[in-house]
Amino acid sequence: MGGTTEGSERTILILHNAFIVTMDPASRVFTDGAIVVAGDRIEAVGPSAQIIRDFSHLAAAESLVDLRSQFLLPGFVNTHVHTSQQLGRGIADDVDLMTWLHQRIWPYESNMTEKDSYLSTLLCGIELIRSGVTCFAEAGGQHVSGMARAVEELGLRACLTQSIMDTGDGLPGNWSSCSADYCIQSQKELYDKHHNTADGRIRVWFGLRQIMNATNELLLKTRDAAEELKTGIHMHVAEIPYENQLVMSTRKIDHGTVTYLEKIDLLRSNLLAAHSVWLNDAEIGFFSKANVKVSHCPASAMRMLGFARIKEMLEAGICVSLGTDGAPSNNRMSIVDEMYLASLINKGREAFMRGTTNPTAIPSETVLKMVTVNGAKSVLWDNEIGSLEVGKKADMIVVNPFSWTMVPLHDCISSLVYCMRTENIHSVMCNGQWIMKDHKILRVNEEEVISLAMDASVDLLKRAGISLPKRMNYL
Amino acid sequence: MGGTTEGSERTILILHNAFIVTMDPASRVFTDGAIVVAGDRIEAVGPSAQIIRDFSHLAAAESLVDLRSQFLLPGFVNTHVHTSQQLGRGIADDVDLMTWLHQRIWPYESNMTEKDSYLSTLLCGIELIRSGVTCFAEAGGQHVSGMARAVEELGLRACLTQSIMDTGDGLPGNWSSCSADYCIQSQKELYDKHHNTADGRIRVWFGLRQIMNATNELLLKTRDAAEELKTGIHMHVAEIPYENQLVMSTRKIDHGTVTYLEKIDLLRSNLLAAHSVWLNDAEIGFFSKANVKVSHCPASAMRMLGFARIKEMLEAGICVSLGTDGAPSNNRMSIVDEMYLASLINKGREAFMRGTTNPTAIPSETVLKMVTVNGAKSVLWDNEIGSLEVGKKADMIVVNPFSWTMVPLHDCISSLVYCMRTENIHSVMCNGQWIMKDHKILRVNEEEVISLAMDASVDLLKRAGISLPKRMNYL
Repeated sequence: MGGTTEGSERTILILHNAFIVTMDPASRVFTDGAIVVAGDRIEAVGPSAQIIRDFSHLAAAESLVDLRSQFLLPGFVNTHVHTSQQLGRGIADDVDLMTWLHQRIWPYESNMTEKDSYLSTLLCGIELIRSGVTCFAEAGGQHVSGMARAVEELGLRACLTQSIMDTGDGLPGNWSSCSADYCIQSQKELYDKHHNTADGRIRVWFGLRQIMNATNELLLKTRDAAEELKTGIHMHVAEIPYENQLVMSTRKIDHGTVTYLEKIDLLRSNLLAAHSVWLNDAEIGFFSKANVKVSHCPASAMRMLGFARIKEMLEAGICVSLGTDGAPSNNRMSIVDEMYLASLINKGREAFMRGTTNPTAIPSETVLKMVTVNGAKSVLWDNEIGSLEVGKKADMIVVNPFSWTMVPLHDCISSLVYCMRTENIHSVMCNGQWIMKDHKILRVNEEEVISLAMDASVDLLKRAGISLPKRMNYL
Repeated sequence: MGGTTEGSERTILILHNAFIVTMDPASRVFTDGAIVVAGDRIEAVGPSAQIIRDFSHLAAAESLVDLRSQFLLPGFVNTHVHTSQQLGRGIADDVDLMTWLHQRIWPYESNMTEKDSYLSTLLCGIELIRSGVTCFAEAGGQHVSGMARAVEELGLRACLTQSIMDTGDGLPGNWSSCSADYCIQSQKELYDKHHNTADGRIRVWFGLRQIMNATNELLLKTRDAAEELKTGIHMHVAEIPYENQLVMSTRKIDHGTVTYLEKIDLLRSNLLAAHSVWLNDAEIGFFSKANVKVSHCPASAMRMLGFARIKEMLEAGICVSLGTDGAPSNNRMSIVDEMYLASLINKGREAFMRGTTNPTAIPSETVLKMVTVNGAKSVLWDNEIGSLEVGKKADMIVVNPFSWTMVPLHDCISSLVYCMRTENIHSVMCNGQWIMKDHKILRVNEEEVISLAMDASVDLLKRAGISLPKRMNYL
C-alpha cells in the first residue's frame, strides 16, 4: 500500500522554495516555505523541507513547482470596485463633483447595456488580476448578470452588487422610477440566479448607492432582506460633508449618515461601508460597536472626498480594508498602488492635526492586513480566504521581488507595500486554479478584451452624449 | 545631385506615425506625427505625411521607424533624486524622522564608498530610465565621481551635486570637520573634472544639504561660487516646521529658511529649492520675484514633511517641477508615480482649507508641464531640453498606451498622468541615443547591476551597523 499509488488518485500541487507571508493569526513567515494545494483548498503549509518530505510522493513531477525564492502571499481583496465603470476611465478627470456626476457618470451608467457591463468587468478584471486581486466586492453597477458572466470567465471570486436607488434629484429618467419593493425584488432575483455560482466563487450582495438615493423604506427593507438571505450590504457612506448636512436637515438627527443608520439599526456586521470619510468620534464608536466594515479608497478619497480617519478607526478596532473605487474616480484600478497610497496619505494627513506628518502611522504590516485578512472579513468570507492556512481556499499570488522596482530587499514586508509595482505580480491563483501565470492572463483573451472594450466604450460615450474638452492644441 | 546621395553622408532617424505631445509653447499635439533626429538633436517635427515627404529620402530604410500610434513625449526630468540612497531602499520605513536620520540615513551615507555610490547610481538610473526620465538633478551625495561614472555609462543627462555640510549637531565624525572653504574647493574640483563631460550630458552644481548644516560663510561662498561658474545650487529648503523655528531663533528673522535666504540674497534664478513645504505668503512672493525653482516631491512630502503649497506657488508664477527624492524616503523612484501623486495630493490637500477636496486642482496638463518644461527650467537646461522642438536635444520617450493600464483612451493627456504605469514606458532616448528600447536597458547590464548592487548594499549595512526589526514572525 504505497503512498504513490494512493496519491495518484488525487491531484495535488506543491509550491516550494518560496518566501511565504501567510498573514495567519501568528503572522508567520516561512523564509523557505512550501504550500500544498489539493483541489480548491490549501492542504498544508510549512517549511519546504518538511512539506517535500511529507507530500512529494503524492505529487506528479510537474506538480512540484520551485518558486525560486519568490514571495507567496494570500490573494488581495479589493473591497470597493465599480467594475462597470472601467469603460469610462478618463471621462471625468479634473472636473468638479457635480460635473463628474451629472455630466459624465450618470449619462455613462444609464446608457450601459448588459454587454457593456460584461466587457467592462472583463477589462477591469484583467487589471484586478494583474494587481494581485483574487476577490473583489463590486460597489454597485447596472447589470449584475453581465458582471457575473465576466467573473465566471475570468476565474475571480466576487461579491456582486446592483446599483440601487429609489429616489434622488436629477437622476436620469430610467433610474428614478424604481420603487423600494422593486429594488428588493430585483436583487432577490439576482441572488437566486447568481449566488454561489461559478464553483462558489460568486456571491450576491444587496446594494445601497448612498443615503441621498434611498428612502427610509428602502433602507429598512434592504436591512431585513440581507438578514433574511444571510448576505452583505454594500453602501457608499459619508462621502462628502454635503451628504451629512442633508441627512441632518431632512432626517432630523445631530450628525450625518452614520448617526442615522445607527438610529434605524442598519449598522450591523454585514454592512460594508465604502469611503466613510466624514465620521465624528461618536460615529466611529457606532461602527466599532456594530462591527461594521470600512472600505478605505485612498486615491478616490484624495481626489474627490477627503481624508478618512483611518488611524482612529483602526484604534477603535474597526476592520478597515482597501478598495480602488471606479476608473473615473482613480484612475488606476490597482490595489498595489492603493497600498502605497494608504500608507502615504495617512502619514501625511497628520500634518493637519499636529503640524508634522507621522511617518510611523499605518505601518506596512497593517496595510498588508488591510488587503488580506481585513479584506476577507469585509466581504464576510474570512472563514475561507484572506490568509494562507490549512483548509482555506487556495487564493494566492506569486510576487517576483528581484527586479529593479524592489531591490535591494532589506525589509521584505515594507517592500511589498512601498516598492512593489503591478509588474512584480508574477502569477495569481484563485480557488485552486491559476488565472494568471508568468504574467499571462489565462482564462480570457486579453488582447481581444481590450479591443472589444475600446470599441464598446466609444459607442457608449456617443450614446451617452459625452464629449470631453481637449486639453492641448491637437493638430 | 540627388537628395539620396547628399543624405547618405548624414545619419538621420525618422520616428513616424506617433501621437506626439510636444510640450512646446503652443501645446501642440500631432495626432499622427513624426520627428527627425539628426545626431543628438531634433531636426524636424510635424505631421507624418509632411515629414516623410521632406525627409524620407535622407534616411536609410532601417532609420524610418513606424511607432504604430504610440505616444512620443519629451523625456521626463526628475529634479530631486538621491541616487546614492538607492542601496538603502527599505532601511527606514515607518520610523520617525530622528530615527530615520540618526539611526539609518547618516550611518548609511557616511559608510558609503565611491564604488557603492557608483553601483547605487547605476541601480537608481535603471529605475529612472524605466520611469521615462532622461535628465535628473542629483540631490547631493558623497561621491560625485562615482555618480558621474554611472551616468556616463547609463546614457542619462544629469546635474550632479555633492552633499555639502559644514556644521550640524550629531553628524558622523567624518562629515563635521569640513570647513566652508574646503566645501567650496572640493566642489570646484568636481566641476573642473566632470562638468560638461559625457558628450555634454553631465553638469556639476553646487550643493547645500540644508540650512541647519550650513554656516553663513558657506551659504555666501556657495552663492558666489555658483554665480562665478554660472551653474546652479541645489538645496533642501523649509522641509519641516522645526527647521523654520530654529532659523528664526538662531538667525534672528521673523519666519523661516526662505526669509533668511532672501535676506542674504541667496534667492536667485539658479537656486533649485527642494521640497519647500513650509513657506508663508511672503516667502512664496520671494521665490516668485527671484525666479527660484521648486522641486516638489509628493511621496516623500506625504510621508515625512507635509503638504507643500503647490497651487499657491503655481498661481504666483513659480516654476514647480517634480522629484522622487531618495529611496529611503519614498520608496518608489518613479516620476510616473509622482505625477499621479502630485495631482491626487494637491486635490486632497484643499479638504483642509475649504472642507472639501478640489478635483479641479493641478490638472493633468499642468502635471505634464512639471515633469517636462518646468523640469528643464529647474535644471537651467530649458534651452536644450524639456520639449520636442526643432534644435533641441533629442531626449524623448515612447509610451505604449494600448495596454490594460491605460485603455480606453478617452482623454489621452489625463491618461498619461493618472493611468500610465512604468510598464507603459516602451523606449527612451537621451541625447539622440536609445538608452532603453522595447523595455530593454541598452547601455548597462541590468541583471549584473542588480546582483552587484544587492551584494554591495548588504555589505554597506553591515559596515554601518544598521539592523532592522522584523515585522512578522519569521520561521
